[in-house]
Amino acid sequence: MHPRSIRSTLAALAAVLLSAVVPASPSLGLPVEIVADASPSADAFPLVTASSVAPLWYDAADWPGVVRVVGDLQADIERVTSRKPKASAERPSAPAVVIVGTLGKSAAIDALVAAGKLDASDLRGKWESFVITTVVQPLPGVERALVIAGSDKRGTIYGIYELSEQLGVSPWYWWADVPPKKRSAAYVLPGRYASGEPVVRYRGIFINDERPCLTEWTKEKFGGLNSKFYTKVYELLLRLRANYLWPAMWDNAFNEDDPLNPKLADEYGIVMGTSHHEPLDRSQKEWTHNHQKYGNGEWNYVTNKEGLTQFWADGLKRNGKYENILTMGMRGDGDMAMPDAGGMEANKKLLERIITDQRSLIAQHVNPAPTKVPQIWALFSEVQRYYDAGLRVPDDITVLFADSNVGDLRRLPTAEELRQRSGGFGIYYHIDMHGGPYAYQWINTNPFWKISEQMTLAAEYGATRLWIVNVGDLKPLELPIEFFLRMAWNPAALGKDQVADYTRRWAEREFGPEHAAEIADVVARFTKYNGWRKPEVVTPATFSTLHYYEADRVEAAWLDVVAKAEKIYAALPAEQRDAFFQLVLHPAKASATVAQINIWAGRNQLFAKQGRASTNAAADRVRELFRQDRALTNTYNRELAGGKWNHLMDQSHIGMHTWEPPVVDVMPSVAEVLLDDVARVGVSIEGDLSAWPDHYGDAVLPTFDSFHPRRSFVDVFAVGARPIEFTIRAEQPWIVLTKAKTALGDDRHWVEIDWAKLPTGVANGEITVTGTSVPVTVKVVAKKASDEQLAAAKGRFASLDGPVAFAATAATRRTEVGGVRWETLPDYGRLDAALAIYPVTAASILPPNPAPTLEYPVYLPRDGNYEVTLVLGPVMDFVPGRGMRIAVSFDDQPAQVLDLFAERGGPPFGNRLAGMDAARDNVRFLRSSHKLATAGAHLLKLTMVDPAIVVQKIVVDPVRRPAGLFGPRPPESYFGPPDCLTVK
Amino acid sequence: MHPRSIRSTLAALAAVLLSAVVPASPSLGLPVEIVADASPSADAFPLVTASSVAPLWYDAADWPGVVRVVGDLQADIERVTSRKPKASAERPSAPAVVIVGTLGKSAAIDALVAAGKLDASDLRGKWESFVITTVVQPLPGVERALVIAGSDKRGTIYGIYELSEQLGVSPWYWWADVPPKKRSAAYVLPGRYASGEPVVRYRGIFINDERPCLTEWTKEKFGGLNSKFYTKVYELLLRLRANYLWPAMWDNAFNEDDPLNPKLADEYGIVMGTSHHEPLDRSQKEWTHNHQKYGNGEWNYVTNKEGLTQFWADGLKRNGKYENILTMGMRGDGDMAMPDAGGMEANKKLLERIITDQRSLIAQHVNPAPTKVPQIWALFSEVQRYYDAGLRVPDDITVLFADSNVGDLRRLPTAEELRQRSGGFGIYYHIDMHGGPYAYQWINTNPFWKISEQMTLAAEYGATRLWIVNVGDLKPLELPIEFFLRMAWNPAALGKDQVADYTRRWAEREFGPEHAAEIADVVARFTKYNGWRKPEVVTPATFSTLHYYEADRVEAAWLDVVAKAEKIYAALPAEQRDAFFQLVLHPAKASATVAQINIWAGRNQLFAKQGRASTNAAADRVRELFRQDRALTNTYNRELAGGKWNHLMDQSHIGMHTWEPPVVDVMPSVAEVLLDDVARVGVSIEGDLSAWPDHYGDAVLPTFDSFHPRRSFVDVFAVGARPIEFTIRAEQPWIVLTKAKTALGDDRHWVEIDWAKLPTGVANGEITVTGTSVPVTVKVVAKKASDEQLAAAKGRFASLDGPVAFAATAATRRTEVGGVRWETLPDYGRLDAALAIYPVTAASILPPNPAPTLEYPVYLPRDGNYEVTLVLGPVMDFVPGRGMRIAVSFDDQPAQVLDLFAERGGPPFGNRLAGMDAARDNVRFLRSSHKLATAGAHLLKLTMVDPAIVVQKIVVDPVRRPAGLFGPRPPESYFGPPDCLTVK
Repeated sequence: MHPRSIRSTLAALAAVLLSAVVPASPSLGLPVEIVADASPSADAFPLVTASSVAPLWYDAADWPGVVRVVGDLQADIERVTSRKPKASAERPSAPAVVIVGTLGKSAAIDALVAAGKLDASDLRGKWESFVITTVVQPLPGVERALVIAGSDKRGTIYGIYELSEQLGVSPWYWWADVPPKKRSAAYVLPGRYASGEPVVRYRGIFINDERPCLTEWTKEKFGGLNSKFYTKVYELLLRLRANYLWPAMWDNAFNEDDPLNPKLADEYGIVMGTSHHEPLDRSQKEWTHNHQKYGNGEWNYVTNKEGLTQFWADGLKRNGKYENILTMGMRGDGDMAMPDAGGMEANKKLLERIITDQRSLIAQHVNPAPTKVPQIWALFSEVQRYYDAGLRVPDDITVLFADSNVGDLRRLPTAEELRQRSGGFGIYYHIDMHGGPYAYQWINTNPFWKISEQMTLAAEYGATRLWIVNVGDLKPLELPIEFFLRMAWNPAALGKDQVADYTRRWAEREFGPEHAAEIADVVARFTKYNGWRKPEVVTPATFSTLHYYEADRVEAAWLDVVAKAEKIYAALPAEQRDAFFQLVLHPAKASATVAQINIWAGRNQLFAKQGRASTNAAADRVRELFRQDRALTNTYNRELAGGKWNHLMDQSHIGMHTWEPPVVDVMPSVAEVLLDDVARVGVSIEGDLSAWPDHYGDAVLPTFDSFHPRRSFVDVFAVGARPIEFTIRAEQPWIVLTKAKTALGDDRHWVEIDWAKLPTGVANGEITVTGTSVPVTVKVVAKKASDEQLAAAKGRFASLDGPVAFAATAATRRTEVGGVRWETLPDYGRLDAALAIYPVTAASILPPNPAPTLEYPVYLPRDGNYEVTLVLGPVMDFVPGRGMRIAVSFDDQPAQVLDLFAERGGPPFGNRLAGMDAARDNVRFLRSSHKLATAGAHLLKLTMVDPAIVVQKIVVDPVRRPAGLFGPRPPESYFGPPDCLTVK
Repeated sequence: MHPRSIRSTLAALAAVLLSAVVPASPSLGLPVEIVADASPSADAFPLVTASSVAPLWYDAADWPGVVRVVGDLQADIERVTSRKPKASAERPSAPAVVIVGTLGKSAAIDALVAAGKLDASDLRGKWESFVITTVVQPLPGVERALVIAGSDKRGTIYGIYELSEQLGVSPWYWWADVPPKKRSAAYVLPGRYASGEPVVRYRGIFINDERPCLTEWTKEKFGGLNSKFYTKVYELLLRLRANYLWPAMWDNAFNEDDPLNPKLADEYGIVMGTSHHEPLDRSQKEWTHNHQKYGNGEWNYVTNKEGLTQFWADGLKRNGKYENILTMGMRGDGDMAMPDAGGMEANKKLLERIITDQRSLIAQHVNPAPTKVPQIWALFSEVQRYYDAGLRVPDDITVLFADSNVGDLRRLPTAEELRQRSGGFGIYYHIDMHGGPYAYQWINTNPFWKISEQMTLAAEYGATRLWIVNVGDLKPLELPIEFFLRMAWNPAALGKDQVADYTRRWAEREFGPEHAAEIADVVARFTKYNGWRKPEVVTPATFSTLHYYEADRVEAAWLDVVAKAEKIYAALPAEQRDAFFQLVLHPAKASATVAQINIWAGRNQLFAKQGRASTNAAADRVRELFRQDRALTNTYNRELAGGKWNHLMDQSHIGMHTWEPPVVDVMPSVAEVLLDDVARVGVSIEGDLSAWPDHYGDAVLPTFDSFHPRRSFVDVFAVGARPIEFTIRAEQPWIVLTKAKTALGDDRHWVEIDWAKLPTGVANGEITVTGTSVPVTVKVVAKKASDEQLAAAKGRFASLDGPVAFAATAATRRTEVGGVRWETLPDYGRLDAALAIYPVTAASILPPNPAPTLEYPVYLPRDGNYEVTLVLGPVMDFVPGRGMRIAVSFDDQPAQVLDLFAERGGPPFGNRLAGMDAARDNVRFLRSSHKLATAGAHLLKLTMVDPAIVVQKIVVDPVRRPAGLFGPRPPESYFGPPDCLTVK
């Protein structure tokens, strides 16, 4: 077991035990509820009662940031109770007093500790920790005190905001209009509530790619990205127990745009950084604006060392006094690769020299001991290549690994690297992207389970010095921002098994208990569906209009979640609706609308190919939905909260054709037909884009299989403008037709098999449609299992024809080896859940060594070659020198070891970004071929090789065409064949 | 030299000499004009004068088909002169008599021969020959006779119709409403006009794939494909000197649908056949209707030999008495491959047995000597594979080779095969296709030069026993049908150098001399443009909207030909308009409309990507043009000739998505945008689909090159609903901006270089657009040649940047070796002309043996690797065992031999059909790489290896990316870089 995993496994265990024994908390910080409306016991602290409001007492010598937050607490208490407590550095005279202070900065706190009335053991020398506790008779004349004591500046601040959140002020009260909970009284329960230290030292966000939304919004509301705006961000971060910020730098220069920006950040308690390619606290725009003052003006260390040195020195002189994390190294101008210095070795040497020189600057301008100044070095693109080729920087520098831009970690530290690097490792993560493989900047597309799964890897592999997440315009990514930051505080508390509960607790905090479960379900579902494929890359071809009713099923899923959200919206009190709209209803409905636009455009394309008169109506649906998308945008911008968020929904999101967002939203292209004034009948069937009688080939319905009975259909439609007349007839009594209508009114005839009327074996039948220019015969093939086949297939995933598909979690047996085991990842991916190996740091095991195995009994109709397709998570090969492997076997055949990254070096994985397909699909595929000597019962086994691989689904298909390990998935369907259950 | 080519080269020479010395003919049969309105000399024959009409005299014992055509002549004379001659088997009493008869069947003709008054030397024993001559005092009491004498039935018929055509009755008088020429008098000039024998013995058409057009039309006008319809076809064929027909067989059974069909065919003089897969005169539908009466009803010689034998015997008993050509062998049911009999050898044996048995049936039911009955055996798909594998059939059977379905011959006989096969070889050709690689059934897409080039190969390589052409619904393929049949009579008279004159003569025959040259030009151009790419496979992506103004140029070319056609239409007398509309104006305008629909849809897609507000207006243009297409169809069907041709333009032709025609016409999908109520400015440039300021990358215009000055452009457009304001400025004085508007009113700024203001070398400049959200800088790079460069490039195809492209015909030198030479193919292909080797049967020459060579002096700006792309004709590897090769070299480097079919066996050429790309593009590409050690002057040489390869264009491009011999052409443009001239 990896050393760090012991610690966090224990922490996870503790979290589980804790949540099982204490009441649910309205805060997402502490796991317990510490505020009550009425005093449950005499020793509860009366913060606000009918007759009293406890005054707030702080030390004037405490951190200004702490003093400032006392004011926030004062306001928060008033927000909740409509009663404003006094707040003062003077000792108040009241029987119940709230004492707020930082150990070593607050005389009152220090006195309580000295008097033995406050245990400071979990504060002294701790990072960002706090204790909230009641002390009886803390001081003469004071009966009872509520003490909020911090180990340091942010410890105290977090403690204060914890009380605010417990009282009912959401961290998002301003940023998402969450109304404070109303209380007539508030008591703090007796007890001692200690935060402990955060697992990740620096936890922050990167406001990035701020045009158009944030730029236009801040221009309208604040006059720019100035301190009026940034203090709103600082407060939010502190309420979320974050401490770190990379400011907007696309069109903006944080330190120059408003000199109060860095000053107030420091005062508030925010550690400032610059993005991964902006060294020594100077933003790119500062260079753009001022480069002509520095040497020859070139961003090139070979030709302009002196200019760059001066530029950086000026920055350090300006900002060195603040709490900063300094970005080290250098890339080319504008986040591009540096000019080649003459090959790999020369480039490495140059970069080493740059960092050495930068350290000297730090020693000169910030701290004579540069190792005392936190520094990061980001491994990005060509810089990661230098690192892989052996380039090393001083051990105290935190090395920052990045994800694939779509949320999959590309690299994690090895145990050896961890041992060697005192500065540790950090993660730069994306929940918003303007760049390759494609931009997603519009809406919340980040399921919690995805962040949980990947950041659990980061934590367990020890990359815990710093986590920073790219949040684009900040809004509307409220949910994943908080999840990411909460997880940074304690990753083990937001592992796979806590995600569902977290979501419900989040919903309860924001909207109260009544609808919390339903709201959590809506949130889980709209993010899950966006996790299938982000709206920006859904196209009319994404979901199959031909097979498995796929487009219909996807549309129905979306419509269901929207209906649920709309019902909740209607049921909520008016004051909660703005928050619910922006956090839940809008992203659900807007995402659904984009899915529907594309699905209807896909239907339009299909109908056009089939010559359906309803082609034009399908095009009109696309137009209506496109207008609905715009209407939703307008509501968000102009009506929500009285226009408070105008422009924050300006991002174009339909019609992407490169990695960039489209210039404007472009409706998917639709086909149109001109109807002839004739009564002309067309026929189409499930699974075929042809129309008869025009098409030359036969009309053959998908084969019916008695192992998983399903219905198919024959559509009959007008091709011309006139109404049609036709007859449809099943030629055999075992073919059952049921009349229905499609959404646009075409005739749909459901086809089912009356299995009781069929003998076992293969039956061939026909459905005849007349009224067409020549009669159309639709062929029906049905395969019915014999008693012997039924007996042999019992308890197995069985097929008489075509593929068998089943969920990974349907394994009938999971074996554990030495504590290493397959566990369920709830909600993960395309199905209800997936499976992965725990602990995630387990050592790799190659066959034939015993390893945790999954067993799937199958029944296959004939001997011969079969292809197994594994639908896997899009996890990357983050362990250097190793792929991402799993072993597949049938029965006692030798296991085949498959590697998602077998073709390292070649496209599409060579650039170590997610391959384009995986990045769009959010899955990876592995295929293997197996020769089975017999028909009937077999046992399919999946055996662990590397941990972290996630198995979602398995498809076993007779080989019909040349299959390759990396061949594209069958093109006809996004999700593939539906899963079946075992035969009963 | 190939043996047959000597003969036809002499014939071609004779034809050229003849056409040079005699007046142009109004007939496309005889090369001389034999009818005059007034008597130019006393010895002209007075057919119709103010005072007399010469009676027609035939022998009652002559062929009924001849007697029938005398009636046609009678009617034709009346059509022209409004005077109806008497026609009788009784000897008329008149001073001037027309004597019509067949040698050996007409007593009068035989008597004239016996009396030495008619020279029968070119009739006796000849095939389908005739003589037209005047005889003085042929009989007592007759002063003068016009004698039309035939060597056989069709010889006489052709002679009669030749007179009709000379009088001014077009063979298409009924089929295309060509009004007969009006004459008050008609004299036949003295002289002896002999047809000679046709080069191709059987010349015919295949009416095929007759749904929807022909089926619906014949249903409405004739009540089906009965003898009322077919006699119209027979007459047409005979007027065109054809003799052979494969009847419609998709939904029809010629012999059963109307028993008069075969009887009248024989009487008229038409030799009937069945299509390539319908053996022994029985159509596929006859089997469909009757198969249950025959054995087990299976179309399988292994399981149902007896049934099939009886089926075939019944057919021979029924039709054996008529003049037929019997199709031999067998394919599977419905033109599919036969069921496998157990591998190649077994399949070959089975097919041999089938043919042996079929020969026995012929001996039994038709002729005891089956070698006397003409038979064909078609090499198609799997049958050709058997043939290639050595399967042989009796030598007297004519082996029928097919084209690629898009007009390129797949196979021609070798000299050895010709020697061995007494039955010779025939060609099955397509000018209409329902099948792979794609269907084209709508309109005339067949340039004469294409038929001329390919059928010249057929003739020169000796495949002259039989030519049959698939004509779909017959109309609207009037032009290529006649060209094909005329060429079958005498291929050498319609070689590459006669095509232009033929077209003009055709126009003159149909519409008189006044507009003939212009009409010929319109015909040549609309078919040429359809030869670039058939309308069915033009898509919005075909012609580049980005590069070289390609889409604009294509649209302009089409609009120009339509304008010309409309001007002629307006100028023509009313009675000629129906014919002109259907033969010229409609196909020109309808084809242009499809091109425009796609070009505008392409612009719509581009504009949408650029966010232009004009996106919607572009979509509306597509809709208007789509309606225009339908209006043209309706005019053809409902208004043309009073509705005479209703349904013949029913064929769908827009929106093909497989090889099949679409169910209905589908408008290309168009994108739409919703305009925001803002004034937002976008900028785009030539060659880039991006729009600025949104796009991340730089805006850089295509590099300007002083060797071929050109203009480029910057477009500035509204992105929102409001009018925009902006300024555009050239930052350097040598950049010249000129304001204009695009077709939809966006601002276009032409960019040109004032070369006089520039020094030599590379200049960098900028154009700035302000008024955008951030200013947009468009970069301008201009390269100006120095005096030294100019001197070095003189007389050369030169470039300072990028590719040099030039027409093959621009070669500065063509060498000839032993009479083998590069000759110009006028009008061929994408440019004004192309080059090919003559004689086409020349032996291959491999380097370093001297071979005919083309020289192109080039000037290239730097040393390094260059790629040469040859744009070639789509000719196939019709010589077995040999590819299609040409050699390329620079200077004294060894020649590289390139082979269009180097990858025989692999896709896309493996199936021996044209590869899909070649079939759509009507070109093939060859690429070669060359390393040049020096910049500056070089000599590019193309050297013949195999004849028949056609060179259209050459592109020399610096290598920028991995290039492969068979790599797709650069995707960005259909035609590639424009051709340049040599530097002066």
